[in-house]
Amino acid sequence: MKTEMCKALSFTVEARDPGCLARAGRLCLPHGEVETPIFMPVGTQASVKAVTREDLYAVGAQIILSNAYHLYLRPGTDVIERAGGLHEFMRWERPLLTDSGGFQVFSLTGLTKVTSDGVTFQSHIDGSRHVMTPEKATDVQIAIGADIMMCFDECTKYPCTPEAAAKSLLRTAQWAVRCKDRWMERGGDRQALFGIVQGSVYKDLRIESAERTQAIGFPGYAIGGVSVGEAKDEMLEVVESTAPILPEDAPRYLMGVGPPEDMLHGIEYGVDMFDCVMPTRNARNGSLFTSQGRVNIKNRQYVDDFGPLDPACACPVCLTYSRAYLSHLYRAGEILALRLNTLHNLFFMLQLAATAREAIVVGRFREFKRVFLEAYSARAVPDA
Amino acid sequence: MKTEMCKALSFTVEARDPGCLARAGRLCLPHGEVETPIFMPVGTQASVKAVTREDLYAVGAQIILSNAYHLYLRPGTDVIERAGGLHEFMRWERPLLTDSGGFQVFSLTGLTKVTSDGVTFQSHIDGSRHVMTPEKATDVQIAIGADIMMCFDECTKYPCTPEAAAKSLLRTAQWAVRCKDRWMERGGDRQALFGIVQGSVYKDLRIESAERTQAIGFPGYAIGGVSVGEAKDEMLEVVESTAPILPEDAPRYLMGVGPPEDMLHGIEYGVDMFDCVMPTRNARNGSLFTSQGRVNIKNRQYVDDFGPLDPACACPVCLTYSRAYLSHLYRAGEILALRLNTLHNLFFMLQLAATAREAIVVGRFREFKRVFLEAYSARAVPDA
Repeated sequence: MKTEMCKALSFTVEARDPGCLARAGRLCLPHGEVETPIFMPVGTQASVKAVTREDLYAVGAQIILSNAYHLYLRPGTDVIERAGGLHEFMRWERPLLTDSGGFQVFSLTGLTKVTSDGVTFQSHIDGSRHVMTPEKATDVQIAIGADIMMCFDECTKYPCTPEAAAKSLLRTAQWAVRCKDRWMERGGDRQALFGIVQGSVYKDLRIESAERTQAIGFPGYAIGGVSVGEAKDEMLEVVESTAPILPEDAPRYLMGVGPPEDMLHGIEYGVDMFDCVMPTRNARNGSLFTSQGRVNIKNRQYVDDFGPLDPACACPVCLTYSRAYLSHLYRAGEILALRLNTLHNLFFMLQLAATAREAIVVGRFREFKRVFLEAYSARAVPDA
Repeated sequence: MKTEMCKALSFTVEARDPGCLARAGRLCLPHGEVETPIFMPVGTQASVKAVTREDLYAVGAQIILSNAYHLYLRPGTDVIERAGGLHEFMRWERPLLTDSGGFQVFSLTGLTKVTSDGVTFQSHIDGSRHVMTPEKATDVQIAIGADIMMCFDECTKYPCTPEAAAKSLLRTAQWAVRCKDRWMERGGDRQALFGIVQGSVYKDLRIESAERTQAIGFPGYAIGGVSVGEAKDEMLEVVESTAPILPEDAPRYLMGVGPPEDMLHGIEYGVDMFDCVMPTRNARNGSLFTSQGRVNIKNRQYVDDFGPLDPACACPVCLTYSRAYLSHLYRAGEILALRLNTLHNLFFMLQLAATAREAIVVGRFREFKRVFLEAYSARAVPDA
């Protein structure tokens, strides 16, 4: 399937960096446009933790992610459907992407039984038993109504033998066919569906999976099964070997990868979309990104530091509050700490993606990356 | 002391309701004007829990309260002072009031020792030992720099014998003299100081305390020692007997009273200012005020109720989200639930105070109160 065959999505590469595989793109979706490369804040349960949609607009979020597995269990697909879809339910007006739940079914639930038909699992909330199949995962995502849906895949665990990884990627490919069939049967015009490449850390299997997934044909492609416990170098190698062989004219999404340095690595190798809970989760634990490296706001030294968190940052938090106030809120257990910290880290990621895009447009991405990383890793002893 | 003798505060009664003691006033303070009657959101630890200053501006907060006891312990008076005062520290631009810590020293701490000089207590945070005196409480509040400070008082416990209450109100009066002396010594021009009337549930002691406090003379007067465990009727009687005998030309503040119906009762008897953690604490527990009574958003019936929380409410939450979404956020343990619920309850209280003011101006306060309470208590079985 060619990208242009999906009415719900169009993707244009607007600039390519001459020094690497980085590209600046524009993704048009039913709920709006997204400039890539982009970081997608994660709103697992129909809410990006601790922030409102106005906060998300303020930090420049163009598309956010939610999770079909979580929404299927709570509040339930019927509630979302009766609300008029997830956009209406959470009152989010920009593009949305839903993960299919493949990753969650394999990582969050107890007593999983996998057959070629699908997965039997127990809810992580109440232990109730459920069956998820590629068709059902697609139906759930159609009811949710996000601009982009993901195929229901088998997320390979780490470590994993080459034999197990090969078997798993085959199953993922078979399921991808069934997801695509159901999506086409049910129209396929209002939402895009992305295929997912698996294959663990094995380069030959990643290539095989990429080929199989392209042969089925989707309007966009994701690299799944990373950030599941493998070494950082292994993850970077998967990106280097997989991203460049995905179709040039379709968006590429690296699932679950989010530290600033890894996002830049992905961009360098031609990835367009990223998501990760790490920026928001770290924020809630007081670990904050700055242009000079990570700051742990819990540290004693910030109690009476009246400067801004990051003097180089133009986010609403850095423009308004001091490190001392952020330190106080964290130490006092105030809910506002979660929110201000989250706002800052999201702004940082979105700003980084936007600045990377500008660097690509002027053909200086690698220079930009080098300068950023030099400052970001400048602290001899980063905050714990 | 006449009100006009305090440069930090002026108070004008702009309208009196012909049918009761309710009045509409204007309080001018160093950081702005406050239209009374007013509800003051509580920001105990330099943050109104779960909301930002922008949220507070959006719901119409004109003045907020913070607590000298908590700030003295954490982050410490020196940090607030070096930040340039509490306004600068928390970046709040409108008027602030600080409670002296009298209530907290008697209710939150262990091993309290009270002498005529002051109180020895242990921090509720780390058990460290501290001494608080009227002079020190005043110094702490001067360092914090709120528009309005409160005298350090002995908050009488409930139940309390008339003898103990009489002794306690005498000590409060003696301490009030010392607070005032320290305040005058240190300038007294940039902040106002309010006296506090004690006397437990005994009418004659309340009258005695009110007379003693007025004899010392303050730019404003508070009714303290209520909402400490006494029956609702006893509290209402204290208000009825105490508020009317406080000076006509000074603002009157009923401390710690917040349910909508009790605020209206206080207004009817001439009270101008209210604070209470109840609207914000209830919000975090899912108990929400509406024009038709309280809604417990935890209840099963709201899971698929797609209407607004209160169709009669114009707050940002009711204009945007459904009961079903609020129910989902609460059930899913999302931080956003705390924030949206808090926003709504604060808007409700501030709107109620503003509407009460309009009713006073047109001379129909009692009619307004009757109609409000009729609707507010309409549910045959209010939500648990």
